[in-house]
Amino acid sequence: MDLAHTRMSPQIRAEFELPLSLLRQRFGDRFTTGEAARMQHGHTLTWIPNQPPDAVIFPESAEEVSQIVTLCAEHRMPVIAYGAGSSLEGHLNAPFGGVCLDMSRMNRVLAINAEDMDCEVEAGITRKQLNAELRDTGLFFAVDPGADATLGGMAATRASGTNAVRYGTMRETVLNLTVVMADGRIVKTARRARKSSAGYDLTRLLIGSEGTLGIITALTVRLHALPESIVAAVCPFPSLKAACATATAAVQLGLGPARIELLDADAIRACNLHSKLSLAETPTLFLEFHGTQQATEEQVRRCEELAAGEGGGPFRSAAQTEERNRLWQARHDAYWAARALRPGASIMSTDVCVPVSRLAECVRETQDDIARLGLIAPILGHVGDGNFHVLPLIDVDNAEEIAKVRELNSALVQRALRLDGTCTGEHGIGSGKKAYLRDELGDAVEIMAAIKRSLDPLNILNPGKIF
Amino acid sequence: MDLAHTRMSPQIRAEFELPLSLLRQRFGDRFTTGEAARMQHGHTLTWIPNQPPDAVIFPESAEEVSQIVTLCAEHRMPVIAYGAGSSLEGHLNAPFGGVCLDMSRMNRVLAINAEDMDCEVEAGITRKQLNAELRDTGLFFAVDPGADATLGGMAATRASGTNAVRYGTMRETVLNLTVVMADGRIVKTARRARKSSAGYDLTRLLIGSEGTLGIITALTVRLHALPESIVAAVCPFPSLKAACATATAAVQLGLGPARIELLDADAIRACNLHSKLSLAETPTLFLEFHGTQQATEEQVRRCEELAAGEGGGPFRSAAQTEERNRLWQARHDAYWAARALRPGASIMSTDVCVPVSRLAECVRETQDDIARLGLIAPILGHVGDGNFHVLPLIDVDNAEEIAKVRELNSALVQRALRLDGTCTGEHGIGSGKKAYLRDELGDAVEIMAAIKRSLDPLNILNPGKIF
Repeated sequence: MDLAHTRMSPQIRAEFELPLSLLRQRFGDRFTTGEAARMQHGHTLTWIPNQPPDAVIFPESAEEVSQIVTLCAEHRMPVIAYGAGSSLEGHLNAPFGGVCLDMSRMNRVLAINAEDMDCEVEAGITRKQLNAELRDTGLFFAVDPGADATLGGMAATRASGTNAVRYGTMRETVLNLTVVMADGRIVKTARRARKSSAGYDLTRLLIGSEGTLGIITALTVRLHALPESIVAAVCPFPSLKAACATATAAVQLGLGPARIELLDADAIRACNLHSKLSLAETPTLFLEFHGTQQATEEQVRRCEELAAGEGGGPFRSAAQTEERNRLWQARHDAYWAARALRPGASIMSTDVCVPVSRLAECVRETQDDIARLGLIAPILGHVGDGNFHVLPLIDVDNAEEIAKVRELNSALVQRALRLDGTCTGEHGIGSGKKAYLRDELGDAVEIMAAIKRSLDPLNILNPGKIF
Repeated sequence: MDLAHTRMSPQIRAEFELPLSLLRQRFGDRFTTGEAARMQHGHTLTWIPNQPPDAVIFPESAEEVSQIVTLCAEHRMPVIAYGAGSSLEGHLNAPFGGVCLDMSRMNRVLAINAEDMDCEVEAGITRKQLNAELRDTGLFFAVDPGADATLGGMAATRASGTNAVRYGTMRETVLNLTVVMADGRIVKTARRARKSSAGYDLTRLLIGSEGTLGIITALTVRLHALPESIVAAVCPFPSLKAACATATAAVQLGLGPARIELLDADAIRACNLHSKLSLAETPTLFLEFHGTQQATEEQVRRCEELAAGEGGGPFRSAAQTEERNRLWQARHDAYWAARALRPGASIMSTDVCVPVSRLAECVRETQDDIARLGLIAPILGHVGDGNFHVLPLIDVDNAEEIAKVRELNSALVQRALRLDGTCTGEHGIGSGKKAYLRDELGDAVEIMAAIKRSLDPLNILNPGKIF
């Protein structure tokens, strides 16, 4: 992490005056250089200081995005796409200024193909907006990163979340993308077939490219049938190892839980404080099963047996919506509950992902670090994938605390890499994890950089990210 | 398709004499310029005339592959990786000569991580070799393209097959690749975590790149638990539409069949002839269900109801291995059975993939074309994906027949594109489908070409393919 960015003055860069005046003429009141809008669009949920763009534009079509990018290319002006602002590694900071494209007006559903279980949407639609539109179809969009992110942003950061163990991440969910490239060309990366062997997989190359190779303006995504039955379950365990072993066995036996979430003892303590619960303050699994009624009943019964075999229990489950929500309340509230452990503090969320066999070890050693450094940092995990989040609560104005969190973070990443894992399972590299990418992938980073240079030779697309 | 390639003389190209003599010195009896070996390695299961390489080498490590590629780069000599030779679109032809790397000696299992349900293997291992090695682990490698292809070749062509509807294609199956790049560098594209948001998805970029961006030397792949229960089923239908509607409904309802295969009436007729069966010569679904015993029982019962609702039946199913194999015999033998319709003829297999809602329409119109052209061409489909194969039986020495098959193929691709599908669902572009790639993806092909130029500026990696 590099915290040495100078905080940009809210002055607009002189070298961009001409292109900005042209954009103001073209977009009228959909163009702003107002300080509040700029600061808001340079700021995301991160510890990295705000770096505002020089202007914010609200495009309404791929053609408008193409016009803007073409002008940016002519004037070597950076351009950064903005979804819901929920990314966590400084993806939206504008270290070299330029224009931010707020995609919120591009939120239309373009087509719902119910029989094919897919739909095409503009990039600025959020997952909750989409699921509201799908309400009467019996289908839903399954990727759930927690925040009400836009689908374009989720594709750009290769997002996933609690459902990934059953329904996949954005990588498995997107069928094609419409993208404005660095020269203003609008391309569609694939057709609507479920699979294809036609040429390079541009769809997957763009997914996770964090706005550095192209700006996503529309995407076709897979949908899933709303399950006939949903059962939620909660089970405390005597140890992290027992909880992780249960989760791993459930996946190995093909019991197919849709979600398997781990909260460590600190996270449970936070939930008890925040939501006035009285859960045992011990590692706890939150599970959800989707399927036919007969299938979910069998899954629950067999998972309960697995948990008991590891010394876990009591195993409580519920099939009715209200009861399910009550059981899962702690998990739903976990992010906000964490703050209850230290009122007034900020959360500096980070994530890693390791092979599931190494998860318990990775979490336990991380807890040791947290204790050694005297930090408060509950841990939440998507255990089915080996992905977990650490949520240190810090005073962002306290340099000593920031140094400790940086030490924690660095040790966490090195541990994940030692266990053959990745420095980020679902948050991305952004500005915050650039230093770790080479530790993880070595020379492969040079291959990435060569692709970046070939597709964005002027380095106007979200410069300063990933590399 | 371009059939105008001149048949290469088996003479070795004079301009490559120096690098070839260096390679002969280095590799001794693992290097050959023998005509038989060269002809065999320039020939795959395709109608495209043989174009042999100048030499064949049998490398035994990534370091050796790197040495060869480095020398090839110095001398601008093409290099083509060869797995099992089962690709179908002329991927292995050597239109500009050069060396073919036969990967068959690189077939070791490097690691089996049973708890993580993955394993790392060298690229030259075949799927049957791997599954034999996994026999005692309770795990299996699920991608099944029919042929006993190598995993490296399957990754390079983004292969899939009958299991994809449940277990995914190579795209979803590979966790990371070890690749020799065009400059001889050996890179690993990712760690072993199930998911990652760390930088560009080089793994997916290489999968389906057909040896044009790098040579895959090893790969880590997901494994799956052998299901507790497997049930096979077969059901004839009064029409293609009824068969496809049943398959679509089974997927939509989340009944999760592992395989749903369609054979058209001609394919069934071939099976009756070849295997002395007496199946009704009508569109027929072959299904397979994997899961717990209770789950497969429920899936079978509900699929039978769906089939009956579309006028299909009788619905026959079997859970015992022998009985299952008997039920599915027609599907297993379908490729070879097709030849029974015209003894002595060659099969020119092709494939397209369309959104499942358009599958019945696409197959029916293709059957009309086959009838109009007076061809014999049974159809097999992976109906859960919208992917199907047409197997025209032709006399490859009859120019008129070849012209008819080209007309059939061209009409098939244009139809698939009109229905928002792809010119190839799982065979790839190779030499055979280059002309269609631009029809399908327009300017996106230029993005692909820019990536090719940036990663292989001398165009030594499998030149003349895809573009």
